[in-house]
Amino acid sequence: MRVYLAGPEVFLPDAREILATKAALSRARGFQPVTPLDNDLPPGGDRFATGMRIYRSNIALMNGCDAIVANLTPFRGVGADPGTCFELGYMVARGARIAAYSNDPRGHFDRLQAGFYHGAARPDAGGEHRGPDGLALENFDMFDNLMLHGAAATPGAVLVVAPPGAAVDADRLSRGMETFVACLARLAEAGA
Amino acid sequence: MRVYLAGPEVFLPDAREILATKAALSRARGFQPVTPLDNDLPPGGDRFATGMRIYRSNIALMNGCDAIVANLTPFRGVGADPGTCFELGYMVARGARIAAYSNDPRGHFDRLQAGFYHGAARPDAGGEHRGPDGLALENFDMFDNLMLHGAAATPGAVLVVAPPGAAVDADRLSRGMETFVACLARLAEAGA
Repeated sequence: MRVYLAGPEVFLPDAREILATKAALSRARGFQPVTPLDNDLPPGGDRFATGMRIYRSNIALMNGCDAIVANLTPFRGVGADPGTCFELGYMVARGARIAAYSNDPRGHFDRLQAGFYHGAARPDAGGEHRGPDGLALENFDMFDNLMLHGAAATPGAVLVVAPPGAAVDADRLSRGMETFVACLARLAEAGA
Repeated sequence: MRVYLAGPEVFLPDAREILATKAALSRARGFQPVTPLDNDLPPGGDRFATGMRIYRSNIALMNGCDAIVANLTPFRGVGADPGTCFELGYMVARGARIAAYSNDPRGHFDRLQAGFYHGAARPDAGGEHRGPDGLALENFDMFDNLMLHGAAATPGAVLVVAPPGAAVDADRLSRGMETFVACLARLAEAGA
């Protein structure tokens, strides 16, 4: 099974090492890993054209894969990396095998209420929590936006979220491999 | 053409009014609009089950559409709403017509550098800008993550970003209709 390893690791200074580790762990489980860095794009050149080349490369890499393992750990804010969200949706529509994980044990509602609104969200007249900006907080006992959790909780999909109380320091969130390894194990057990 | 109106408007206190306005503007351009609120889900019940029902409903609504108009205006942070990103990827893989817009005139790099890193991102030895957290800033002259801009800049797709200098107050970002209307016009001109 060819598995696309999606996630915001590509932005880390040690992106190549982290993705090499994830690829090795995938091979050890019998998967053929593909990462967003598996391209041979020429360096330099026009910025916009480079961005478009990377886009087309990632689409082609996904088209060659049977499954996605999406790292949906929150990135630069309260939720998952937008590029990874796009890729998850893309692979769902292709009918690929879906696996996702988050290194953050906190639920979506709690992260929003504590991390974004600093406790200031209050129930409105209908009982729905809203921030001082008026925006509703999704409150579905999910780890992130319902389109992400929904895709990963559909029958046949695999979702692994760090257990309650797991450390949430930056290094663990960015580089921790426990939930990724558990995700691979469950994908392997579920079969091709 | 049946058009799925994706975006974070669903979280606004006046979500139904805003989406009714967007639907009316779509009909005026000859489209058949579909919104995430076009479901008849029962109220109440178990939170998680409700989230899953909404997920399946949104997937079914997208499967019935020929196109997506995705509101990728930044939402609760520096980038687009994760649910909308997922939906954009889903519709790209389905081969749907793609239209996207942002009410925020600022580019991705500038929003990150100014809004997230408060000017503290610096070029590394390779010339790539990184925040104090070590994370690279995409710098492709794009309005958001390259998977989003890439999808919307692919031939045949439509992308409208608010012009430089457009107001970025919260109400304009959340409820402005100019870029949405321009997006519909370009989608209509491009034909079915």
